[in-house]
Amino acid sequence: MPEISRLGIKMPESPIRKLAPLANEAKARGIKVYHLNIGQPDIPTPEVGLEALRRIDQKVLSYCPSDGLPSLRQKMAEYYGRFAIEVTPDEIFITTGASEALTLVFLACLDPGDEILIPEPAYANYMSMAMSCGAVVKTVLSSIDNGFALPPIEAFEEAITPRTKAVLLCNPNNPTGYVYTREELEHIRDLVRRHDLFLFSDEVYREFRYTDAPYVSSFHLEGIEPNVVMFDSMSKRYSECGIRVGAIVTRNARVRKSVMKWAQARLSPPLLGQIVAEASIDAPESYLKGVYEEYIQRRDFLVKRINEIPGCYSPLPMGAFYTVAKLPVDDADKFCAWCLRDFSYEGQTVMMAPASGFYVTPGYGRNEVRIAYVLERDELARALDVLEAALTTYRDRWNKR
Amino acid sequence: MPEISRLGIKMPESPIRKLAPLANEAKARGIKVYHLNIGQPDIPTPEVGLEALRRIDQKVLSYCPSDGLPSLRQKMAEYYGRFAIEVTPDEIFITTGASEALTLVFLACLDPGDEILIPEPAYANYMSMAMSCGAVVKTVLSSIDNGFALPPIEAFEEAITPRTKAVLLCNPNNPTGYVYTREELEHIRDLVRRHDLFLFSDEVYREFRYTDAPYVSSFHLEGIEPNVVMFDSMSKRYSECGIRVGAIVTRNARVRKSVMKWAQARLSPPLLGQIVAEASIDAPESYLKGVYEEYIQRRDFLVKRINEIPGCYSPLPMGAFYTVAKLPVDDADKFCAWCLRDFSYEGQTVMMAPASGFYVTPGYGRNEVRIAYVLERDELARALDVLEAALTTYRDRWNKR
Repeated sequence: MPEISRLGIKMPESPIRKLAPLANEAKARGIKVYHLNIGQPDIPTPEVGLEALRRIDQKVLSYCPSDGLPSLRQKMAEYYGRFAIEVTPDEIFITTGASEALTLVFLACLDPGDEILIPEPAYANYMSMAMSCGAVVKTVLSSIDNGFALPPIEAFEEAITPRTKAVLLCNPNNPTGYVYTREELEHIRDLVRRHDLFLFSDEVYREFRYTDAPYVSSFHLEGIEPNVVMFDSMSKRYSECGIRVGAIVTRNARVRKSVMKWAQARLSPPLLGQIVAEASIDAPESYLKGVYEEYIQRRDFLVKRINEIPGCYSPLPMGAFYTVAKLPVDDADKFCAWCLRDFSYEGQTVMMAPASGFYVTPGYGRNEVRIAYVLERDELARALDVLEAALTTYRDRWNKR
Repeated sequence: MPEISRLGIKMPESPIRKLAPLANEAKARGIKVYHLNIGQPDIPTPEVGLEALRRIDQKVLSYCPSDGLPSLRQKMAEYYGRFAIEVTPDEIFITTGASEALTLVFLACLDPGDEILIPEPAYANYMSMAMSCGAVVKTVLSSIDNGFALPPIEAFEEAITPRTKAVLLCNPNNPTGYVYTREELEHIRDLVRRHDLFLFSDEVYREFRYTDAPYVSSFHLEGIEPNVVMFDSMSKRYSECGIRVGAIVTRNARVRKSVMKWAQARLSPPLLGQIVAEASIDAPESYLKGVYEEYIQRRDFLVKRINEIPGCYSPLPMGAFYTVAKLPVDDADKFCAWCLRDFSYEGQTVMMAPASGFYVTPGYGRNEVRIAYVLERDELARALDVLEAALTTYRDRWNKR
């Protein structure tokens, strides 16, 4: 039997999804599992998006252009205008979710051995996508103690080598919920300019910012326009993760041309998702406002509740719908698996994403978990009660040994 | 400005889509362009598939499992049963079109430098997908003179090196329309067994076979069960290329496990497409029968008509909906571009895919084009009239110089 690839062996499993078999087994035993592990909002998709689906009258569900439906690209350009991100439809390239946007941009811009600098913890799939094209992720450590603020720019400088090709920021940040300040972003801009790097900017959580600070996109940073490549997705803001529609936005025509070659090989992004996405942009203002208010309440509740549990700590995330919290355990990987396999409280348990998978440096984040606050308040409250009970049981069991 | 990747520079443009800007310009000049370049059928999507869309009543269009909806995988297992391909739902992995199936399997099975043996001409995107993970495509030449039959197995033997990891066959073949015989496939099976290779088998055109020979799938070849990885797609058989739903089918659990790691990084295949796909499998028998009859008529017409044009030759393809035809031109790339840029006949022109892009060996197939017969009979007839006129004009212009 021929062997699978060495990369396939080396590749880590997704920290977000690898515990899914244990969760399924728990469910099969009749246990209710609260999903704090995955960024799948429970918020309804905008009605205009669903209505567009029902109204589809095409007789043939055919391929669309490799860079997406022109009408969607037009609509997205208008959407970006709301944030003073001035781009033309030509500068927007539709992809199969932000996941594919990352893959296509990495292929278009990075050769095997090229390095990307990322503050860690970071969205785990950046590392997977980089591995798939042979690029190397180098990290600069951020810390829970200052809420995962941008590490000093000197730490980035030290990590730069002749193979460094790009800096990747997720802003607002997944998994930490941190929102970078203008000052921090200007440090990054100067770094990018000094070393002529790409700035890959994942801005899928743009709508989820809970501070009064003015919004700063990578597109607002002056003097590095051709260096900026932004990733976007409809999934989170319109609660439609399943439609698989994202985008690459860049003023750099050479990058777009290179992306197009790889994109043509996969023919076309999903037609139906694009129809839903286009309609969703017309959701009434009240929709995104309602979503915003819901999340800010959940965040406030979640963080307060975590910090009430003895030995737990979460900073106050300023954006997205995640927090990275410290738990009073030695090994969050083991604890998260234990919650699913060996624990239940009144027939319930919790599924969390161990933070180790969001760190590249081995051993970091071992007592941290990522918690997504994508459940409604009452569910979240019950989930946190279950977490507290789990921690108590786990500690007692441990102490008896 | 940072440089794009060397791979992005080296990567060829899709032979199927690279002339699209010229086609768009022609259309902007008011010229009707007959699309013989792309495998986008004009056949309506099954009504049951469209109806399933209209009936979607989910409030949240959420992620689905990384390997696809269990109900679709169950349905597909039943579908394969019609062809005596006995697989369980667990052995079916849903992907974003067959394109993604290729990418995931290449990542799961091949390391940079590993070689895949493919008869050429071959579907151009195999080469792109291989490049994206650093694998190397080695080709064995098939010939228009025997209708692109499988080259002698000795030619495969000669091409094998210590890095050869897989043989890739497309059956029925895109671009040639050839359907491999049981004898040919058994030669491949013996080769695969002798050298312990993967057999990657692209069977997306399974429904489009116009011979009386019994159907032979890679799953019917005995003794190489764990070596076989089949690619499939809903796009062609149900005329729903835009839904982006394909599959990897393999009994090899290690391959599936490796595929899962890469698939988790992209989270989920498209939800809406899967709903349409699942419903489409229930299309009445008359649907696929009607499609079949339509294509066989088109094929017969197309091939007869091509062979009536002086200097043109097409073998009779036994499957799929393409043929590779020889034209009386020196350079089909130039001729195809010329048709779009410089020619029109009664306000019409044709777009074809130059066959050079389907060959890996430079210089091969220079006077060949791939023609897709995805237009209805009358359109096809007009397109061929236009092609004949184009060839006459081109020859006259050439001779005058």
